[in-house]
Amino acid sequence: MYQIGVDIGGTNIKVGLVDENMKIVQRETIPFPHTTAEDTAGKIVQAAMQMLNKQGIGLAQTESFGVVVPGSISENADTVVDAHNLDFHDVPLKKLLQEQLPGIPVYLANDADGAALAELYAGAFRGCQTAVLMTLGTGLGGGIILNGRLFCGGMRHGVELGHILLVAGGESCTCGNRGCAEAYCSASALARAGRKAMQMHPDSLLYTRSEGNTDAVDAKFITDCAKDGDAAAAAVFDEYVEHLSAACASIFNLLDPEVIAIGGGVCAAGEFLFEPLREKTTEKCFYRNHGTILPAQLANNAGMIGAAMLHQNANK
Amino acid sequence: MYQIGVDIGGTNIKVGLVDENMKIVQRETIPFPHTTAEDTAGKIVQAAMQMLNKQGIGLAQTESFGVVVPGSISENADTVVDAHNLDFHDVPLKKLLQEQLPGIPVYLANDADGAALAELYAGAFRGCQTAVLMTLGTGLGGGIILNGRLFCGGMRHGVELGHILLVAGGESCTCGNRGCAEAYCSASALARAGRKAMQMHPDSLLYTRSEGNTDAVDAKFITDCAKDGDAAAAAVFDEYVEHLSAACASIFNLLDPEVIAIGGGVCAAGEFLFEPLREKTTEKCFYRNHGTILPAQLANNAGMIGAAMLHQNANK
Repeated sequence: MYQIGVDIGGTNIKVGLVDENMKIVQRETIPFPHTTAEDTAGKIVQAAMQMLNKQGIGLAQTESFGVVVPGSISENADTVVDAHNLDFHDVPLKKLLQEQLPGIPVYLANDADGAALAELYAGAFRGCQTAVLMTLGTGLGGGIILNGRLFCGGMRHGVELGHILLVAGGESCTCGNRGCAEAYCSASALARAGRKAMQMHPDSLLYTRSEGNTDAVDAKFITDCAKDGDAAAAAVFDEYVEHLSAACASIFNLLDPEVIAIGGGVCAAGEFLFEPLREKTTEKCFYRNHGTILPAQLANNAGMIGAAMLHQNANK
Repeated sequence: MYQIGVDIGGTNIKVGLVDENMKIVQRETIPFPHTTAEDTAGKIVQAAMQMLNKQGIGLAQTESFGVVVPGSISENADTVVDAHNLDFHDVPLKKLLQEQLPGIPVYLANDADGAALAELYAGAFRGCQTAVLMTLGTGLGGGIILNGRLFCGGMRHGVELGHILLVAGGESCTCGNRGCAEAYCSASALARAGRKAMQMHPDSLLYTRSEGNTDAVDAKFITDCAKDGDAAAAAVFDEYVEHLSAACASIFNLLDPEVIAIGGGVCAAGEFLFEPLREKTTEKCFYRNHGTILPAQLANNAGMIGAAMLHQNANK
């Protein structure tokens, strides 16, 4: 049997056919947005049908149809409450798709939750009962696996990993609170700190390489300067890892997961990030034999695979 | 059917007979410590038998025998790994009791976990699927209910609510890390802040009422001075509530529980604590429709009732 996994993003929609080994055997990409949500649902189903045709697979061999979106989902998981990047507000997406897919179970989830599920079935969380994914990008998102299943919050509002407190009363966060983990641990937070340091240290690689252009100073640029031995960049990177390790320790102390996986562009730094991160986290953890910190494994396919696995998650 | 719940503390052991309505129908208290752990197990069973005799209840009507201890429990929940107040280290307590209670299932748990379970069956968490107990005392302990069951950590090390980060790099914590919630939100942290303020404000009620005696300045004393309008005490109490609200917001944002219950002596402050706490927490929460903050309900009986409910928790 096959599962169809759909990842709706702000500029395109990825539709994937996922086999029993959690491999994407065929994919289609269609542009987004369309005139209406009904139109979007129609185009998604059309793309899925084309994909099945290409593989010579009938709908009867398709066990489920899962969709993830970058936004909040209603408690009964049938409606996109708010997905700002999609301009979807109270869109009954499950119903719109289900009408065109009689007999096939349709599932809807948040994309960060989907990514965590993808890691469970095909990535860093394989074999885990309890695991936490933190994705470091513009914000800090992620998902939680508990008892071998996706945990979407006790009241199904979601899990806001970016908004656990890290420095109460500290940096302003986009959520309106101060001191959230997102304000210290997102890739944007690293870039922000790097830009400040660049302006304060005109002799640094941060400044000379970017020629004082703040737009050039992103997470990768800072990491590269730090790797190349720039003291200003190293200090910024070190403080970033310090905060990230505090967030990891906080999660280990509360939930005691077997694995914390870190995703997002910052991870391209590899062991330059993970080695000090593990060391600093262990220093801060209550339990000396806490779980492992690993890079997330699925990157751009996480959404499709996670969406495809929603059926198995629901029936576990 | 009846359950027996045993709460082992540093100075005495409480043995309770709990009926189907989660009421303690009979209790015995015996002193602690004894010469050996074997001796302790024997005395506990003896007290339980006396209790059953008094009620005219046979062992056949006793469904389970649960014990909670102030310490860490092995992953398979049969051994007390470390309970410093009891001087129990690697004590196979379940086996010691089970040998004397053939045919009756024996359970062992941490006392804070037991307290959370007691709230689930007989207190503030009744009807909840997801709930968090924070007990504010010398330290900050507590327990987590997930999916209607006790959650003892993904790797069964426990849940260390006191050691979620609140102010990374801040106040030193007993665990060796800096900035843990315990260092800001325990009753001891409130007392510490009150003592500092007392010495800085010789005109305050904090000083005049205590006559400068730091030992007199505990959580209740500070709360009473704040209630009576003392500016120095009010400032300390306000900052304490500010930090406690940040911890609550952090937990709501991560786990989205239906209820956070607050236990421990600090709760005697009643609405003087809970009203500003709820307000400040809502200001900080990502979700406007987050769960409720309630006082814990079971106080001194939480250990016995939680111990008695371990059987139901295990079979849920």
